[in-house]
Parts: sequence; C-alpha cells; structure tokens
Amino acid sequence: MEKLFYDVVAVGNAVVDVLARVGEGFLKERNLPKGGMVLVEAPEAGKIYADLVIEREVSGGSAANTIAAIASLGGTPAFIGKVHDDELGKLFKRDIGVAGIDFFTNPLEQGPATGRSIVLVTPDAERSMFTYLGASKKLSYHDVEEEMIKSSKIVYLEAYLWDGQSAQKAMIKACKLAKKHGKKVAFSLSDKQCVIRHQQEFVKLIRRYVDILFANEVEIKTLYGEDDLLKILDIVKEECKITAITMGDKGSVVVNGRTKTFVEAEKVEEVVDSTGAGDSYAAGFLYGIINERSLGTCALIGSFAASEIISHYGARPEISLRGFVRSKLQELGKKSI
Amino acid sequence: MEKLFYDVVAVGNAVVDVLARVGEGFLKERNLPKGGMVLVEAPEAGKIYADLVIEREVSGGSAANTIAAIASLGGTPAFIGKVHDDELGKLFKRDIGVAGIDFFTNPLEQGPATGRSIVLVTPDAERSMFTYLGASKKLSYHDVEEEMIKSSKIVYLEAYLWDGQSAQKAMIKACKLAKKHGKKVAFSLSDKQCVIRHQQEFVKLIRRYVDILFANEVEIKTLYGEDDLLKILDIVKEECKITAITMGDKGSVVVNGRTKTFVEAEKVEEVVDSTGAGDSYAAGFLYGIINERSLGTCALIGSFAASEIISHYGARPEISLRGFVRSKLQELGKKSI
Repeated sequence: MEKLFYDVVAVGNAVVDVLARVGEGFLKERNLPKGGMVLVEAPEAGKIYADLVIEREVSGGSAANTIAAIASLGGTPAFIGKVHDDELGKLFKRDIGVAGIDFFTNPLEQGPATGRSIVLVTPDAERSMFTYLGASKKLSYHDVEEEMIKSSKIVYLEAYLWDGQSAQKAMIKACKLAKKHGKKVAFSLSDKQCVIRHQQEFVKLIRRYVDILFANEVEIKTLYGEDDLLKILDIVKEECKITAITMGDKGSVVVNGRTKTFVEAEKVEEVVDSTGAGDSYAAGFLYGIINERSLGTCALIGSFAASEIISHYGARPEISLRGFVRSKLQELGKKSI
Repeated sequence: MEKLFYDVVAVGNAVVDVLARVGEGFLKERNLPKGGMVLVEAPEAGKIYADLVIEREVSGGSAANTIAAIASLGGTPAFIGKVHDDELGKLFKRDIGVAGIDFFTNPLEQGPATGRSIVLVTPDAERSMFTYLGASKKLSYHDVEEEMIKSSKIVYLEAYLWDGQSAQKAMIKACKLAKKHGKKVAFSLSDKQCVIRHQQEFVKLIRRYVDILFANEVEIKTLYGEDDLLKILDIVKEECKITAITMGDKGSVVVNGRTKTFVEAEKVEEVVDSTGAGDSYAAGFLYGIINERSLGTCALIGSFAASEIISHYGARPEISLRGFVRSKLQELGKKSI
C-alpha cells in the first residue's frame, strides 16, 4: 500500500439521491407523509420506486457531500461507506472518484441494494424524502482500516450512520483509532429525528470522542433538551472542544472554551435548494481547520461554501469551491486558502 | 540613527501617578469631588499637592501603561510623550527605560512641569483622581518622527491626548505617517468624559484612520449615542476594521466585519485595583495581533494581562506577563506566544 495522506477521512452512508416529480395525488394514494425525511425499508422503497419516472440520480449522503465539497475546496479527502455492486453503487463510486476522493471500501456482492434517498418533488416545490439505507447499514467494523485513519488529520462522521448496528461499530472503531493516533474527530448531528432516536448515546459519544461538533439550532437544542440558544452555548463548551452551530440566514456561532464567535451568513440572491447547506458548511469549516485558520475564518469559509450549494439544485458543488472561496476571502481582505 | 524595529509605538500622555491616603475631611475642606477623574490646572494641582504626605509616586499614563505591559509580554515597544526635565520627568523616563521601552522624546526645559495624576485614597478605599496634564499637553508635531512610525508595526494612541491642541496635531501626524507607511493605527477611547468632550471628532478620526479601536461598554455607547450593545456591534463593524469592547467581569467582544467574538474574562480571586485593566487588555490584544493570533486568542491574552494588573495596586505589571500569559495559554491547550 502506498503512503497515504489525507486531510479528512469521512465515514458515512453511501446513498444515491433519486429525484422525481410527482403530483399531489402520488403521495396521498400511497399514504406517504409530505415534507421531511423518513427511513423506509426495501419493500416500501421498491413500491415507491416502481411507479416513478426518474428525473435524475445523483450521489448524495451527508458525509459524502461534505467530502465532495472538501475535494472541491482543494483538500485531499477519502470516504468510507458501503454500496452494493449494482448500478447505483457504480454511480456512487464513479461520482466519488470523479470528485477526486479516495474510496476503497469493498462493495457488497450480495444482500441489500445500494442505499437511496427517493426525493419526491411536488408541484408546490416541496421535497418529501424516503430513504432506504440498504447496503449503507452493512458497513462493518472491518471496513475501517487503521492505516487510513492514521493517515488523516481529521475523521468525520455523520450521525445518520448510527441507525445501523453494524455501522455503529464501524463508527466507534474510527473514533478509537483516531484517538489512538492523535487525530481529530468531527461529528455532524445530521437531523432532528436522528437526534431524537439516539439522544443519550450521542451525548456520550460526543463527550468521549468528538473534538468538533456540527449541528443546526434545532438539532443542538434537541440534543441537550434546552431551548435557549445562549444557555446551549454555555452547555456545549463543557461537552465538546469546538462546536459549530448553523442558524440558517442568521449565520453560525462557534463555541470554543471561553470564546463564542458569531459569524454572519454569506448572502445569496435566491435560495434554490437548501439541501446540503449544513454538509457544505462543515466542509468549509474543516478546510479552514486543516489550514490552521481562526475559528471565525473557518465559519466564514463554511458560509461561503454553503452559499454556493444552496444557490442551485443538488447538494454537491457545481463550480470549483476553491476559486469561489478564494475570491470571497480576497473581497474581505483576508489571507487566501 | 541605527535601524529601529518596533512592534508598537505609542503616543500618549506622560504622567506620574502620585498616591496619597487622606481622610474624608481632606476632600470636603477643599471642595473636591469624590471618585472619578477630573482634569485640573497647575494652581489647583499645586494646592492639593502642597498639603499631601505622598505615599508613592509611580509612572502612569494610559498608553504608557499599555506599552509597559507590551514590554513585559516580550514585545519591542517605544513611547512618544512629553515630560519636563524635572524630578517627576526623570522618574517617568527611568521607569520607561527600566521596563525596556525606547523613549527619545526631548523633555521640556521650561514651561509646565511633568504631568501628574494625584490619586487620593480615602479610608473607604475609593480613589479620587485629579490630573494635571502639564508638559504632556506640550507634545508637538515635531516630536513624532517619521523614522519611528515607519519602523513600527502598530501605532497606538490614547484619546486622553486629544485634550491638548498641540498634542492633537502630533496624533494626526502619527496617523498620517502610519497610513503612508501601511502601518496599523490602534486607538483607545480612554474615558467616558473624554469621549463626551470630543465625540464628533473621535467618530471622524476613527473612520479616517483607526484599524483597531479599544473601548469599554460605557465609552463606546457614549461615542455612538446608542445604549443597546447588540446594535452597537452592528454600528462599529461599519466604522472600524477591528473593535474590541471590554465589559468588565463579563469579558470582551471583538467585532471584525461579519464576525463577533465574545470572550470570557479571566477570573481573579480578588480585584484589588481595577486601574489599568483596559490599558493592559489592549497590550495583550495587540501582542496577539503582532503574533498573528486569531482575534479570539488576542482577546484571551488581553484578559490574562488584565487579570494580573487588577490583582494588585498600580497599573503596571509586577511579574513577567510573558511567563504568566504563556502558562495560561498552556492551561487552555493553546499555542504559546
């Protein structure tokens, strides 16, 4: 094995987003909830899938989106996640490769198909998501290789991954190896429902392993059962070394011990699709950390990256984030990345 | 002239603090206001001075205190200010020299005596200050040498200096030379009354020249005529590149464009004498800037420096601030200075 060197290794769900436009009737006839994200099993996914006219299939997954944005920023990332050796699995692998990301996890030869998130867009432009984790949940302890963790500055984990028993063990292994080799662990809370499902376990996981925690306001409030943001800021400073909380168009706040840094959001003319905003913020933030920038600048880079993602459909960058962020930093008279 | 190289050159009042303990009657008999700082002229100063049993004479002056703390932190500072060639003037010059600060301003041979701040401590531990600026106000345009400003990274000015017509010209010259040579200008608002006296002029001065503004809550609220701190933070971001606002035991907040960083105060067991807290905060902050640390860390170093100053009588450090701040940064797991 040649000598590896990564900025960030992410462990996450390998999921392909399947987009389709449907009428209001489609959801009602199948008794499907509108808006939000719901986990579904194979039969249910198959039932929805069968009747659809697919518009677009694009690689997704929260941590995978983050890692794609880090690659676009100029970083050297790797991804660990499980696909099946089927069509969608090949698509996922191709997209990851084209983005310049190392991805060596062996695909499943049998068992569940590649995970997919069926995104149904109704005429009112609302998105209803039905996620079948499939092969993703089969990520195993053995897929996390010590050499890879040892070769990375930061290990990045998504909370969604905790939904699979086998994947949980893979996450814990990644955390332990990171600590063993003195690497930073970053963790993203992913989703309110996911936090509700695993609240106690996440609190413990963060306390024990996590150096950099990403969350939005709703997620962090849910995690610590506290609704007052200022109180939350005083709680998280005891729970985690660095916590970055995104607050939509109000920007973000980074808590690091005695320091709380509020950073405004980068303004965008029109928010076309907010999917992936948090993922790309985390990417920009981590890229700042890798480059030893101040936490305020890390948050700024995060907000720049997010502004690109939300200005078009899809959760992966459509331009070179490196060039984009460089020009934004230059505008503010800040040192380039 | 040998090649100079300074971290900070300060332009300020050269004042000696004259401390004396008096009974309550002393103030009443002479009809002197208790608490706060009042500017007095020579006859009045002489009248107070004549009757006193002096306990201690120590070099003071706001910017001079800052510069002494920068020297103690390990910086290379210089001071520009006017004394008379009298006993207090010699004391001031000696203290500045012993602290390791370059101080080349020619003393007055005639005219007003060296400035002094008579500090009367009543049995209730309250301090009533009567400041005679004397020679300080005679600082002139010619005392600010281009070579010195050119040799420094930062030019630091105290607002108190604006009280003298001649000194104003010296300040403006320092600002213009700093801009000419691409140096940063830092400015401290000094005191609420001083801000009231020169409010409009200070707003203009800041807008035109100042890169780093230091103020406490009362001073900045007075300057911009706004009582809501959060609104102030949105005002100052348009007025000055970096603004550091101290808030006593609530810590400080640094505004830099889109970023607002709140930093907790360093706790002290007992606040013995808060004189010089703002001066030493500015010193720590600027020392952080010189060392290219993040603004949050600059504020932290400021709070460490201030915690040393307020834990004893007098506004100048009594230990090596460098060692003190190093150990504090180490405790927090931060890179040393």
